Amino acid sequence: MSKGRVCLAYSGGLDTSTILKYLINDGYTVVCMLGNVGQEEDWAEVERKALALGAEKMVIVDLQKEFIEQVVFRAIQCNAIYEDRYLLGTSLARPVIARAQVRVAQENNCDILSHGCTGKGNDQVRFELAWKALAPSVKIFAPWRDPDFIAKFQGRNDLLAYAKENNIPVSSTPKAPWSMDENVVHCSYEAGILEDPDHTPPDELWKMTISPMQAPDKPYHFTIDFEKGIPVKVTTEDKKEVTEAVELFKLLNKIGHDNGVGRIDIVENRFTNLKSRGCYDTPGLTIARLAHLDLEGLVMDARVRELRDQFVTTSWSRQLYNGMYFSPEREFIENSILHSQEVVNGKVRMMAYKGNVYVIGRSSETSNLYSEDDASMDSLDTFTPQDSTGFININAMRLKKYGEARIAQGKPLTES
Amino acid sequence: MSKGRVCLAYSGGLDTSTILKYLINDGYTVVCMLGNVGQEEDWAEVERKALALGAEKMVIVDLQKEFIEQVVFRAIQCNAIYEDRYLLGTSLARPVIARAQVRVAQENNCDILSHGCTGKGNDQVRFELAWKALAPSVKIFAPWRDPDFIAKFQGRNDLLAYAKENNIPVSSTPKAPWSMDENVVHCSYEAGILEDPDHTPPDELWKMTISPMQAPDKPYHFTIDFEKGIPVKVTTEDKKEVTEAVELFKLLNKIGHDNGVGRIDIVENRFTNLKSRGCYDTPGLTIARLAHLDLEGLVMDARVRELRDQFVTTSWSRQLYNGMYFSPEREFIENSILHSQEVVNGKVRMMAYKGNVYVIGRSSETSNLYSEDDASMDSLDTFTPQDSTGFININAMRLKKYGEARIAQGKPLTES
Amino acid sequence: MSKGRVCLAYSGGLDTSTILKYLINDGYTVVCMLGNVGQEEDWAEVERKALALGAEKMVIVDLQKEFIEQVVFRAIQCNAIYEDRYLLGTSLARPVIARAQVRVAQENNCDILSHGCTGKGNDQVRFELAWKALAPSVKIFAPWRDPDFIAKFQGRNDLLAYAKENNIPVSSTPKAPWSMDENVVHCSYEAGILEDPDHTPPDELWKMTISPMQAPDKPYHFTIDFEKGIPVKVTTEDKKEVTEAVELFKLLNKIGHDNGVGRIDIVENRFTNLKSRGCYDTPGLTIARLAHLDLEGLVMDARVRELRDQFVTTSWSRQLYNGMYFSPEREFIENSILHSQEVVNGKVRMMAYKGNVYVIGRSSETSNLYSEDDASMDSLDTFTPQDSTGFININAMRLKKYGEARIAQGKPLTES
Amino acid sequence: MSKGRVCLAYSGGLDTSTILKYLINDGYTVVCMLGNVGQEEDWAEVERKALALGAEKMVIVDLQKEFIEQVVFRAIQCNAIYEDRYLLGTSLARPVIARAQVRVAQENNCDILSHGCTGKGNDQVRFELAWKALAPSVKIFAPWRDPDFIAKFQGRNDLLAYAKENNIPVSSTPKAPWSMDENVVHCSYEAGILEDPDHTPPDELWKMTISPMQAPDKPYHFTIDFEKGIPVKVTTEDKKEVTEAVELFKLLNKIGHDNGVGRIDIVENRFTNLKSRGCYDTPGLTIARLAHLDLEGLVMDARVRELRDQFVTTSWSRQLYNGMYFSPEREFIENSILHSQEVVNGKVRMMAYKGNVYVIGRSSETSNLYSEDDASMDSLDTFTPQDSTGFININAMRLKKYGEARIAQGKPLTES
Repeated sequence: MSKGRVCLAYSGGLDTSTILKYLINDGYTVVCMLGNVGQEEDWAEVERKALALGAEKMVIVDLQKEFIEQVVFRAIQCNAIYEDRYLLGTSLARPVIARAQVRVAQENNCDILSHGCTGKGNDQVRFELAWKALAPSVKIFAPWRDPDFIAKFQGRNDLLAYAKENNIPVSSTPKAPWSMDENVVHCSYEAGILEDPDHTPPDELWKMTISPMQAPDKPYHFTIDFEKGIPVKVTTEDKKEVTEAVELFKLLNKIGHDNGVGRIDIVENRFTNLKSRGCYDTPGLTIARLAHLDLEGLVMDARVRELRDQFVTTSWSRQLYNGMYFSPEREFIENSILHSQEVVNGKVRMMAYKGNVYVIGRSSETSNLYSEDDASMDSLDTFTPQDSTGFININAMRLKKYGEARIAQGKPLTES
Repeated sequence: MSKGRVCLAYSGGLDTSTILKYLINDGYTVVCMLGNVGQEEDWAEVERKALALGAEKMVIVDLQKEFIEQVVFRAIQCNAIYEDRYLLGTSLARPVIARAQVRVAQENNCDILSHGCTGKGNDQVRFELAWKALAPSVKIFAPWRDPDFIAKFQGRNDLLAYAKENNIPVSSTPKAPWSMDENVVHCSYEAGILEDPDHTPPDELWKMTISPMQAPDKPYHFTIDFEKGIPVKVTTEDKKEVTEAVELFKLLNKIGHDNGVGRIDIVENRFTNLKSRGCYDTPGLTIARLAHLDLEGLVMDARVRELRDQFVTTSWSRQLYNGMYFSPEREFIENSILHSQEVVNGKVRMMAYKGNVYVIGRSSETSNLYSEDDASMDSLDTFTPQDSTGFININAMRLKKYGEARIAQGKPLTES
Repeated sequence: MSKGRVCLAYSGGLDTSTILKYLINDGYTVVCMLGNVGQEEDWAEVERKALALGAEKMVIVDLQKEFIEQVVFRAIQCNAIYEDRYLLGTSLARPVIARAQVRVAQENNCDILSHGCTGKGNDQVRFELAWKALAPSVKIFAPWRDPDFIAKFQGRNDLLAYAKENNIPVSSTPKAPWSMDENVVHCSYEAGILEDPDHTPPDELWKMTISPMQAPDKPYHFTIDFEKGIPVKVTTEDKKEVTEAVELFKLLNKIGHDNGVGRIDIVENRFTNLKSRGCYDTPGLTIARLAHLDLEGLVMDARVRELRDQFVTTSWSRQLYNGMYFSPEREFIENSILHSQEVVNGKVRMMAYKGNVYVIGRSSETSNLYSEDDASMDSLDTFTPQDSTGFININAMRLKKYGEARIAQGKPLTES
Repeated sequence: MSKGRVCLAYSGGLDTSTILKYLINDGYTVVCMLGNVGQEEDWAEVERKALALGAEKMVIVDLQKEFIEQVVFRAIQCNAIYEDRYLLGTSLARPVIARAQVRVAQENNCDILSHGCTGKGNDQVRFELAWKALAPSVKIFAPWRDPDFIAKFQGRNDLLAYAKENNIPVSSTPKAPWSMDENVVHCSYEAGILEDPDHTPPDELWKMTISPMQAPDKPYHFTIDFEKGIPVKVTTEDKKEVTEAVELFKLLNKIGHDNGVGRIDIVENRFTNLKSRGCYDTPGLTIARLAHLDLEGLVMDARVRELRDQFVTTSWSRQLYNGMYFSPEREFIENSILHSQEVVNGKVRMMAYKGNVYVIGRSSETSNLYSEDDASMDSLDTFTPQDSTGFININAMRLKKYGEARIAQGKPLTES
């Protein structure tokens, strides 16, 4: 009799294959689950492998559309960024995968969820916080934190030996000296040789972008249309228009890929209070984020933007990074994002070239807060320059007191 | 007898020459002042012109060193940025110029200060707020807000006519169809044809950078060393080392210039509540800011950084943009900047290439908070993976309540 | 023929009577408007006086319900407070009055709006910013900033002399040596003898509260029920239940009044960059705010609360104080308030006694996030204490690095 | 031979006496430590008891002065408060006690630290985070999270039985049906009957304040002088002046105690993500905080205050609550506190009466930013009222655009 029914996040790799077999050998029934969030994968082969190893079932769910529409577009709408650099590619996919896995578990009467994440990283936190919110009574088996499991598997050799014993097929391709996580938004690279933060990532590492140095010698022009802060149309150089969410995002990816746009290499602070070095290539989101940010300059009220920048962008980004997607505070913040984006309508003309993307013009028919007449230094039709005098004088009242106090203290501000 | 003594910010251009002559014709004695903040200028010619037009004196002050050391380096230390894009080039220079002008006024017994800024822009605010803090009893003559002056000079033709009458020499070079402001940090371009935010800036506009498309076909490698968040050494590809502040910053400018780094084109929100389109090329500061940001990833505590990002960076940037440099709140925030930078020591290896600059490695001998051993997914020497279980469970307590409440309401989080 | 049609905010006092007469004498047609926001007033007498002085019409609008429901309840929902002390009584009423006056102006074809506010205060700003948002093309006559008007009326004696000449009736009651502004939320006292911030306000000053020292010797018990953060029922000591918004709020006022609750005396920072001393008695809102704050402890998620406290409460309060009610940022923030209050349902039992109000219990049937079992130190049913170990250890990782760095620097944290 | 040397936080109560004996029985050598942070205690009896039970040594350290000067005064300087209500009494004492215990451990060659805190609360976190920062290599024994210990002691009866077996003396006073933690700042009450948040705390609970209803019938007047935000002198009704820190704080406690000032009863959010009900009486700090807050109104720049309120106060308070005192971020924030307090000099006149404390006047000789002339509505010496027009108009530019957009959308702001 089965000890219990486990729903395992299964990728087909050595780690999760080992976990699958370990669970079966230990008496559990295992339903495998793999979310398609846009990664490159031989789906049929993964299924074949899972079943060959003894999984009761292998469920593969296409999550691309909900990933892009529900999470990635929200990231674009709030210009999400972590520690000023990281566009959150991995973090964005986790909630969608975690939710799908809970659904699969529920449909298949599994009361235990399992994953192959390491015990030091952010991903275990993201999966498990999501699971506990989604299914508060769920049980979790995290092998890389399980004393028995980690005693048994102390290094890659133990895994290989176990694979041999248990007929787990091992890829003949030598393992890259770093680990990767890929989805439609980005590919991340960390660990291995990248653990030295002064070791430059080799050129063959990057998967979703070509090298800026190999990119075409002429810029590529295109236009993105936004409605309520969401990209709704991309028009290419040859006037092709793409509007469907997944297709549109993949087109931005391709533009970014071909022009080497969106590579970063950083040291970041994990939620688990460790510093970690990560490299990421994020072609389409890098482009979409810049276009969105730019359009907001044209159409968004200054003070709404200031408040949004200081609390909504930072909060949402951190919530996603820390795995707090299924939380009341993410709901609270997301409600603000949507409100702020009502007016973000218009189009941004762009150009990608050898590693960079540039805005070369923007316009909006419906929400333009910019007025050439207002802005023009020459026109006084809508402006009384004497008003500036009053504005300055009232703003200066407090500063004059400060200057006077400093003079009284013998430390006038005129001194450097 | 003179009606009074005016200290005028004089650039030698048509506008300030007209103001100079207008003041003299109106019975004032005028001392002209021009701050050298690194702009390209024929200094001797400006002086000759001012004296020829009747200025009592022309004072030219080299402010480059205090500009870079006191303000630009502070901007680097706090990663200053306005509305996520603008590196504040013009705003950074204003306090230094304003202070120098007050000093010149005081040394020359002028009790009136004057400038040629327009009545709609940020710069009038920046100069006058600074002046009122620096010299609280100062009087100000702002011609472009003076009803008599603006009645007399309603357009460029009035200025040209007045120039002709008063023997004010007018440059034979045709005026560019935009206005510019240059200092060692950046050159700004606005107004004229740029008032249409969908009009792409022409290639000949940019002054401090060559076009990415004309930049060299191979990347340029260099290294920046920081001490307490300040760049203290730049090492070039051919191992030249530069350490003096002005020289160092100009070297970064040259690297940026030659590789087309630091062009932006935005619509921003002025302090005076108008939207405005500006183009800026900021080669050296773009490079230095990225290097600094990157090093902080390695050496700065995560929580200090979070607090610094959310309140110090945003506050300082806005203070500078709004002309609140000489203010108690800027002092308050700057005290925090300095404290946060005690540990920002180390070096960043970089590469510039066709419009972009990349970090390719970073290290610190003294303040490295990063540990390969800690970060490594394989090493458990400094880490007990079971701790993550507790960390997750305690963090999940609140989220489980949320999930349970949603289930009780019949709106489980598992639904999209 | 009339020079134009003015809609004047008219209170019946000497100042606005003078302005009314002055406008009429100057050739304007004047429609007077007075908003009833709960102040004590002889409404018929005000109307009689306005018409006697020559107003074309006197419009009195009862704004109490919209004031309380649309603004005061929002203040309660977000625990609004300015500079940690001021409950914003005057600021809350201004938007409602300003909007009503614009409506009256529009209905009576007035294209000029006028008020009797001083030229230094916050109220002129609040009225005029509201008017300009509500009716962007409106013209404004602000007599106390009008050079002719202020030249003519340099002090109270000039007003009295003008009154005599123009048959403006002057109250025989001697003017209090301070000025007051009253509405259903509070009465404010400032200026006159209060301008010395070390001058204790005399006991006869306070209008909406009796002295704590004269309050009853026994506490008064009552209960407030909230739905979505709004007080929906007050139950008195003798079991009377009041649910209608205006009546309910007035009952809280009476409880506060009778028990001397809600007096404050502060120095505050005006939007116009002056410091100002104000005394305020705010009985009902003081009580409602405390009850609401307390209930949120029971029912609101910790992180939503933290974000709300830091950004929403402060932003909304400052927006109201600065007269930015009719603004996109107030709309943006208010959207967050409403979202945050969905769960704020329950009841708070209270006791008022001699100047203070105390919470003595709280409960919620629908949104209780508190669990005795969870909280209990004795129960381990829902809690694994070992989880705390992991939580502490992961949180400590960063702090250990800090302690180690300090030891390495020879400045161990064990030193004071 | 001893298994190891433990330094145990020992209070003399049943719990820590049990732990002491348990450790000794288990083969450890135990040095007991008790910090005097102002709680009421029979110190000699605690020592006698510890030694009788077999402790090698009982070290009692008077921490009152460093507690008040280093932590409590910092709380006053930043108006520290948690969730708008809790003055952090327990949290403030923890760092001082934790540091003293590490010192005692180091002096006595103990490499294990131990405490009697429960496994659900904040205090275990506060102690252990502090210990790990102070002595990164320390080992910790937390019995209430130790599986063997909690298996052995599942309820109070197990403790009493063990006490009987091991000759641990048990107080004959019946245990209060709640738990308390006392220091010179406050006494906290929680658990037991208080676990029901709707159960009103009984009158006999409060230890540091008498009931407002039993307080004197006349107000008590006194004055507090501040230097750099620190209370440096209290002058009583009978002109007694107290200046020494501990004595001064205890005098404020006595004034508060005698007049029933500083009782609160709240539901708060623990760092460990549980809600918890706590009652606290905090007489002196309630008074000092109000006085300090009030003085800042007079002497502190408006914008510095705004930044301080939004970031410094909230951050420091949360850091202390969460046990992050020994952290780089607390140092970072505290540096800001000190800078902000340079100008907070002056005196506040106060009155305590039946549960409340009132400010009745404030003054400052050195840092007064308030000017009667500036504030006066009648004086125009330092103010040009027309400036307000410009100030309003520039601020309105953005709002007019908003009003116009709403009119264009058919949703004018004049509609409710």
